[in-house]
Amino acid sequence: MKEFWSEKAKSLTPYVAGEQPKEKLVKLNTNENAYPPSPRVAEAIAQAAGALRLYPDPDAHRLRAAIAEYHGVRPEQVFCANGSDEALALCYAAFFQNGAAGAAGWFPGTSIPRRVKTPDVGYSFYPVWANLFDVPLEIVPLKEDYSVDVDKMCGGSGMILANPNAPTSIALSIPNIEKIIQKTDGVAVVDEAYAPFSRATAIPLVSKYRNLAVVRTLSKSHSLAGLRVGYVVADENLIAALQTVKDSFNSYPLDMLAQAGAEAAVRDADYCREVTGKIVETRAYTIGELWKLGISTLPSDANFVFARFHDPSAEAVFAALRERGVLVRWFSGKRTRNFLRITIGTREEMDLFLSALKEILCK
Amino acid sequence: MKEFWSEKAKSLTPYVAGEQPKEKLVKLNTNENAYPPSPRVAEAIAQAAGALRLYPDPDAHRLRAAIAEYHGVRPEQVFCANGSDEALALCYAAFFQNGAAGAAGWFPGTSIPRRVKTPDVGYSFYPVWANLFDVPLEIVPLKEDYSVDVDKMCGGSGMILANPNAPTSIALSIPNIEKIIQKTDGVAVVDEAYAPFSRATAIPLVSKYRNLAVVRTLSKSHSLAGLRVGYVVADENLIAALQTVKDSFNSYPLDMLAQAGAEAAVRDADYCREVTGKIVETRAYTIGELWKLGISTLPSDANFVFARFHDPSAEAVFAALRERGVLVRWFSGKRTRNFLRITIGTREEMDLFLSALKEILCK
Repeated sequence: MKEFWSEKAKSLTPYVAGEQPKEKLVKLNTNENAYPPSPRVAEAIAQAAGALRLYPDPDAHRLRAAIAEYHGVRPEQVFCANGSDEALALCYAAFFQNGAAGAAGWFPGTSIPRRVKTPDVGYSFYPVWANLFDVPLEIVPLKEDYSVDVDKMCGGSGMILANPNAPTSIALSIPNIEKIIQKTDGVAVVDEAYAPFSRATAIPLVSKYRNLAVVRTLSKSHSLAGLRVGYVVADENLIAALQTVKDSFNSYPLDMLAQAGAEAAVRDADYCREVTGKIVETRAYTIGELWKLGISTLPSDANFVFARFHDPSAEAVFAALRERGVLVRWFSGKRTRNFLRITIGTREEMDLFLSALKEILCK
Repeated sequence: MKEFWSEKAKSLTPYVAGEQPKEKLVKLNTNENAYPPSPRVAEAIAQAAGALRLYPDPDAHRLRAAIAEYHGVRPEQVFCANGSDEALALCYAAFFQNGAAGAAGWFPGTSIPRRVKTPDVGYSFYPVWANLFDVPLEIVPLKEDYSVDVDKMCGGSGMILANPNAPTSIALSIPNIEKIIQKTDGVAVVDEAYAPFSRATAIPLVSKYRNLAVVRTLSKSHSLAGLRVGYVVADENLIAALQTVKDSFNSYPLDMLAQAGAEAAVRDADYCREVTGKIVETRAYTIGELWKLGISTLPSDANFVFARFHDPSAEAVFAALRERGVLVRWFSGKRTRNFLRITIGTREEMDLFLSALKEILCK
């Protein structure tokens, strides 16, 4: 039907998020943190709840100060959003969208295509935003080993990738990231949702490259998927563009409780380090156990592993795990359909997953 | 500078929200509710805070069910967003935005202009979204008495207005709203942010008109400006368009605490009725006292009044009130610059405002 829908709405194919099951399952499908957030978060939220009749700070000054301190940057280099999904969407609008005039995809007055480069396997929201904001993407295939092809990612008029990449879990080294930033004409967006489980971050490069925007989320590293807080670290000039787009879309993207809870979480760096450490440890254990079962994984720098299946197929294992109460994620794309993406949960959850998997493989 | 900004970002003039002062003032400038939210809100939030490591329900099923029950509609006729600002922005994208191809502003294959009608005095975010989403607006002047010109609002290929209107505070009657809906080719968006302080709502018309979208917020009526929850009530087909745009922008617009707190507030209808009743009472008192001072107001159906000043000017009174610790809002536009918009606070706050005003006028 779609009567009364705008032409834009008719043209969209939305992102499909991982299932949020109603029943009790071992939930290893959406890369949530296995542990609860810092206990200081609930305290801060309870305190903030007393002032809900008033508008929140539209520019999240206290939270931005906490994030700036955490990363050793200035608050003017930080932009906060309603989850890193909103942060990424606003990056498309602020850096890549050329409005009606530029949408044809050419640099003004030339026949040089204006294209934003992104790997063929990455966060599946990237092409959805490209469609929403009329941004022509140039899809760059991963190499055979599923790592990002650094040379081919160079030379775009814009660039977006996840590092570590999702769902592959593989991280590029920072010198390789730096090479791509140097060889991108416009803005290079590095989505570091999973970087806290890695050793590498591009945030220190922000002071060096005026065209770099690093996007982070508190969903994974700080156990706050339910609170919807993401942020961008970038040069002040790029932050001003994001601010302009935000104030043309929604002045108050972060409610009072999200601002207060996020600030408390960011300030409790010790707790975050302890939790990410446990997950990195359980990741090593899980990879070892999978190898003992003959299942290989891509080298993971994230809070999930990407495990290859042959016989039975990944899709069949996905279904069999689900029957046994274990939920993981399977992507039907050509290059991903032989893999399952498995979130690293607690040691107990991984043992439940591994014993269900053993049952399935030994049948 | 604006180096690296997208053409779209360069073209934007953002919305300017009312000041959120750091110092202690009698704050009558952003139409917040004078009273705290229902005590059940804080309880619901404290309970929800235990599950923050998990993603929230992306489609806010429980909250939508509560809103549907409250209004006597079906949950499929309700869409929830991160404040009514986001709800309105997504309405532009879902109903008005024609993408690169349609942005020139003509119906395909004709020379009939595709225009969305809106009054010249209204919520100042409306033209900002029009710019962001490349939607050509047709600006329809209010009548001399500052009421919406019903006949001239008819005949658009889309329509958006606030009812009661802001900052004028005047409400159109529902038969007049119905006339505009009937004579709009595309979607008619009725922004009812202030309707709970009025007698009139267009929500019962949703079952009758497939092209009607009514937008609401919990910020004013439910004392939850700090929580950022708005919603749309419309035909299922329109809700599906909003859902499609939302899932192409941000899958999880409402965090867990906002969903839980909003649900508790909506379910406590008695509390909301009591609070809005008190505000309506204080509004009548304030209007009476202003008249005694020789200050006239437009007929108000909102939780604010729009009061006309001549000598001293509205701008001078604004500044003098601010010096005395009372913050109201002044809009510099040609048709609004002789007025102040004054939020209805508690009786005590209004008495502080009135005595400051007396001082200023008797000088």
